[in-house]
Amino acid sequence: MEAIIAVAREIRETIASNVPKEAEITKVDFEGPKVAIYTKRPQVFLENDGELVKRIAKTIKKRVIVRGDPESRLNEGSAEEFIKKAVPPEAGLKNVYFNDVTGEVELEVLYPEKIPPEVLNRVFFETLWTPRVLRKPPVHSRTVSEIRELYRASKQERIDFLRKLGYKVYRKPIFPADRVRIVSLGAFHEVGRSAVLVQTPEANILLDAGLKPTGNGDELPLFDLPEFDLESLDAVVITHAHLDHVGALPVLFKYGYKGPVYMTEPTLHLSKLLFEDYIKVAQREGKNELYSMRDVNSLLLNTYTLSYGEVTDIAPEIRLTFYRAGHILGSAMVHLHIGEGLINIVYTGDMKYARTMLLDPAYNKFPRAEVLIIESTYGSKSDVLPSEDDAKLELAKIVLETIERKGVVLIPVLAVGRAQEVLLALLDLMKKGAVPRVPIFIEGMIDEVSAVHMTFPEYLSATIREMIYRDENPFTSENIHVIRGEAREDITEKKPSIILATSGMLTGGPVLDYLRILADDENSSLVFVSYQVEGTLGRKILQGLRKLSFTDPSGKVINKDLKMRVYRVEGFSGHSDRRQLEAFIRRMEPSPRTVILNHGEAGKIEEFRRYLSSEWFKKKTGLNLDVLTPKNAESIRIV
Amino acid sequence: MEAIIAVAREIRETIASNVPKEAEITKVDFEGPKVAIYTKRPQVFLENDGELVKRIAKTIKKRVIVRGDPESRLNEGSAEEFIKKAVPPEAGLKNVYFNDVTGEVELEVLYPEKIPPEVLNRVFFETLWTPRVLRKPPVHSRTVSEIRELYRASKQERIDFLRKLGYKVYRKPIFPADRVRIVSLGAFHEVGRSAVLVQTPEANILLDAGLKPTGNGDELPLFDLPEFDLESLDAVVITHAHLDHVGALPVLFKYGYKGPVYMTEPTLHLSKLLFEDYIKVAQREGKNELYSMRDVNSLLLNTYTLSYGEVTDIAPEIRLTFYRAGHILGSAMVHLHIGEGLINIVYTGDMKYARTMLLDPAYNKFPRAEVLIIESTYGSKSDVLPSEDDAKLELAKIVLETIERKGVVLIPVLAVGRAQEVLLALLDLMKKGAVPRVPIFIEGMIDEVSAVHMTFPEYLSATIREMIYRDENPFTSENIHVIRGEAREDITEKKPSIILATSGMLTGGPVLDYLRILADDENSSLVFVSYQVEGTLGRKILQGLRKLSFTDPSGKVINKDLKMRVYRVEGFSGHSDRRQLEAFIRRMEPSPRTVILNHGEAGKIEEFRRYLSSEWFKKKTGLNLDVLTPKNAESIRIV
Repeated sequence: MEAIIAVAREIRETIASNVPKEAEITKVDFEGPKVAIYTKRPQVFLENDGELVKRIAKTIKKRVIVRGDPESRLNEGSAEEFIKKAVPPEAGLKNVYFNDVTGEVELEVLYPEKIPPEVLNRVFFETLWTPRVLRKPPVHSRTVSEIRELYRASKQERIDFLRKLGYKVYRKPIFPADRVRIVSLGAFHEVGRSAVLVQTPEANILLDAGLKPTGNGDELPLFDLPEFDLESLDAVVITHAHLDHVGALPVLFKYGYKGPVYMTEPTLHLSKLLFEDYIKVAQREGKNELYSMRDVNSLLLNTYTLSYGEVTDIAPEIRLTFYRAGHILGSAMVHLHIGEGLINIVYTGDMKYARTMLLDPAYNKFPRAEVLIIESTYGSKSDVLPSEDDAKLELAKIVLETIERKGVVLIPVLAVGRAQEVLLALLDLMKKGAVPRVPIFIEGMIDEVSAVHMTFPEYLSATIREMIYRDENPFTSENIHVIRGEAREDITEKKPSIILATSGMLTGGPVLDYLRILADDENSSLVFVSYQVEGTLGRKILQGLRKLSFTDPSGKVINKDLKMRVYRVEGFSGHSDRRQLEAFIRRMEPSPRTVILNHGEAGKIEEFRRYLSSEWFKKKTGLNLDVLTPKNAESIRIV
Repeated sequence: MEAIIAVAREIRETIASNVPKEAEITKVDFEGPKVAIYTKRPQVFLENDGELVKRIAKTIKKRVIVRGDPESRLNEGSAEEFIKKAVPPEAGLKNVYFNDVTGEVELEVLYPEKIPPEVLNRVFFETLWTPRVLRKPPVHSRTVSEIRELYRASKQERIDFLRKLGYKVYRKPIFPADRVRIVSLGAFHEVGRSAVLVQTPEANILLDAGLKPTGNGDELPLFDLPEFDLESLDAVVITHAHLDHVGALPVLFKYGYKGPVYMTEPTLHLSKLLFEDYIKVAQREGKNELYSMRDVNSLLLNTYTLSYGEVTDIAPEIRLTFYRAGHILGSAMVHLHIGEGLINIVYTGDMKYARTMLLDPAYNKFPRAEVLIIESTYGSKSDVLPSEDDAKLELAKIVLETIERKGVVLIPVLAVGRAQEVLLALLDLMKKGAVPRVPIFIEGMIDEVSAVHMTFPEYLSATIREMIYRDENPFTSENIHVIRGEAREDITEKKPSIILATSGMLTGGPVLDYLRILADDENSSLVFVSYQVEGTLGRKILQGLRKLSFTDPSGKVINKDLKMRVYRVEGFSGHSDRRQLEAFIRRMEPSPRTVILNHGEAGKIEEFRRYLSSEWFKKKTGLNLDVLTPKNAESIRIV
């Protein structure tokens, strides 16, 4: 990789001829999709609001970062001393880590927002170490610290990956991007195992790599389809940390994928947590493990995180930008710009086009967008959900009645997203006195997810973000009891109470234990707050199943009649309902010409297609959309 | 391959337990998709109208042929003596060839129809050689004799291929055929480079492998599409011998394809001729040759010919049957039966649903058919062609007027099909006195194609077939002069005259020489009688191009204004016009549920789709068709 290949040489020559002598450049190399310029005098590049960096970036059409020349850097001891003096005490500097491979210095602080930018510049110019500010969450998060430690421990491996990535992203294309195909690997005419392959003659980009939860194990996307070739995969882009979008990602690494994965930083953290839990549950339940922690670590080290709005080259002639999706913490919509103006694709992933307590709504103004791939979970005309406020009232009623009966409210939740939303709702109801302060039991994993939320307040709604800035923990109160190893039989004894447990569709996890114990208690309630995929136990119960069959910890099969009261509270959904889907399409800027519906049951997809193609919709909106509804295992051309 | 694999063992055991002792079976093996039973007493199998063979075939669900035990065969000398006595003299026995590898004896006779079946049985029972009757054409055909010689010289190679094929066709499938895809490799939203891949999880069948003629060389189908993998290709099925359907076939062998090709016997012969001509023209014109005669010979030896109506297994759970297409000699429609009743596909290839002088119309009653892939060359509402009789009158008028001006009628023809049809029309007009008997010049290749027609009278219309049976050559008269090496300048001197020359779309071949010489002769006429593909010189002239540029034999570029009168006579087309396409769909039995339109320009395809999907068409016909118009490089699911 150190061989000077054509592209790198061109870039070096362009930079050399554009920079004044006094800049004292000592090296130019790739660092992922960015070009890193090593210099003895970073101030030449960054003064005047970084005018020189901007000019270089414009000329070479690549993003540029400036790094201090390794020889000229201040020694770590003196640099640390300088940093400790420079950073204002109110920022709460906790730790300083030097990465001698990249020349970065990590400042772990309690309040990153309290360090003025000029302080960081001063640190850089004086020490030649590039400061990188990390938030230290107010509560301890195992996930956050483990990921930070992993990267620190693997700094050489990581920089090697980034250099290789740069060379690959900027390779000279052999074929022109004159044909673009959408290959349906999963979540077309179904919900689950999301996987969309965007294919040009030169590049292959996989959007999401999910699992489909079913009654018997999980189904992978159609990775055996001839269109999909791991060897020629350029990038995997993950929209958010739910197993039906990210669950198959470690499998790709197990199969031998060595390329990059793009996601937001919260998604990276939450995904790690999901994978660990998945392996743990599989082991406990004696299921076949699809992958191991080794595969998870490979993928963590091959992940390149992006913020919303950050434009990045991910293959020759393909640029990726994430936009806010409003679904869960860090959830993103994908914008791909292909072939210098040839075509632009927006893939929504899971998306909520409405404000929630936790998150701002999905964004829908794009620089360009001809093709929209939109989720259709609630694509049927009848899929109109109540507002979150109404849902809260309904939940309050169920909780109140169950408390009066001295029962337990058991709420199956996805660890990520719904759990936090429901927790916030319950705390708010208790605060307002609408519901008595009964104990709320949550499994440890849900608590860890809340801690990750507090590490990334920039991704949350203004209200919650402000609480975190003010050092208030929005997810805790005295009533919340985090379960750490207590026997589940004992927990259920404490009545009345509320229990939040995973998995959200009753396909595994601790919730099944609680359900087994509580099933024949007619005073207790089972409350579904999220979408139940076809074939899951959750869906079956909603469809009327009352004869349940469990395996207890000793391996004995236990049959029980479900006597709990079963409720479905819909307003907490992280998905847009039918009205919101329609509004998203109507208000999207610019209007797309082609809309591809995915992530929905076949019937809902067809119904939504008919509606969007109808004369009525055309007249009402003035939109003449080409609405496509490919099935899994189809490949369609958009150019 | 000699190892007894599971399938073969099963078959052998089934046969052994179903056959009486006195049959004296000595060996059972595959011979292509058929199971060959070697026996000392073939009469046991074939007596009572072959009752035993039929029973075995029904039990093992495979086609069965009976071969004499090699040890017990009569020696070749005595066998030949026996045959010469047994065959009635009126059959005109000319040659006898023994194939000691397969145990067949070829009887080359002038009139195969004059040998009663019982004579052949007697030859078999007495000599233990299986008689195979071949027609010796009344005029010499280089193609026919070369192909027969090739097979005789490669008898061991051929039987090895057939055995291997049998094992491959009858392998135990690993995946169930629960998904069937149509992958568009060529001729979707265009005319030319026909190539349709039918793909199940277990098998890959390529229907046609054509080239697209263009202004600059020929375009291959999208063989670089990831769905297409030469290694896992099970079979290539060719509908007819036109380069836009068969022209890329030798390229597959050049790339390393080693599997079987299925076509009719006339298609095999005509294709060989086309390939030779293609190579010759390419060499003469200094173009890049896409393949060599070595590749052509490989494909000839890997071809398995089928008659119309013959049902054959070509892969596990896939059965192929050819039906008459009415387009050119030997042209076939493809019927695929997939997965024990899962789905049936009819692919028309090029098809004429009307009687012509030369051929009976396309067949359209099938045992089952859910999906129809139909050509749409004339899919536009305005594509209504005159009848062949009207076309003849129009041609007569043009010829008469040109003769009066003492000019030359230059007719660019595809060597195969249109040339014979136009020749028949001209001869008929002269016979009836509608046109004076001026000389008709044809290039040697067209004459050779006519000779191939006379070798396969069973594939022709009743009238022409009867002429051949009566030993009349329908394609000759005193006026026809076959050009063999004469200077083209000299030919054009003989005015008035008619010249038929290839290629039919002015993309190369001798017609370009004649056009160069005659271009500025305003007394002469240029008459197009077949479809002109977009981008070809023929199409451009029809669109008004009059400034032509040629390279003369010395390599000099010559610019000429086209002063010839340009005509287009449409009724000789080998394609169905719009009314015939519609009639074919309406009258097809059973009615398909899905109709896929291909082999048409994008505009015509769209127009035809709109019509077939319209309420008007539904009401008129009662058909509620799902009409699909995939583009090249799309993969759609039909199951």
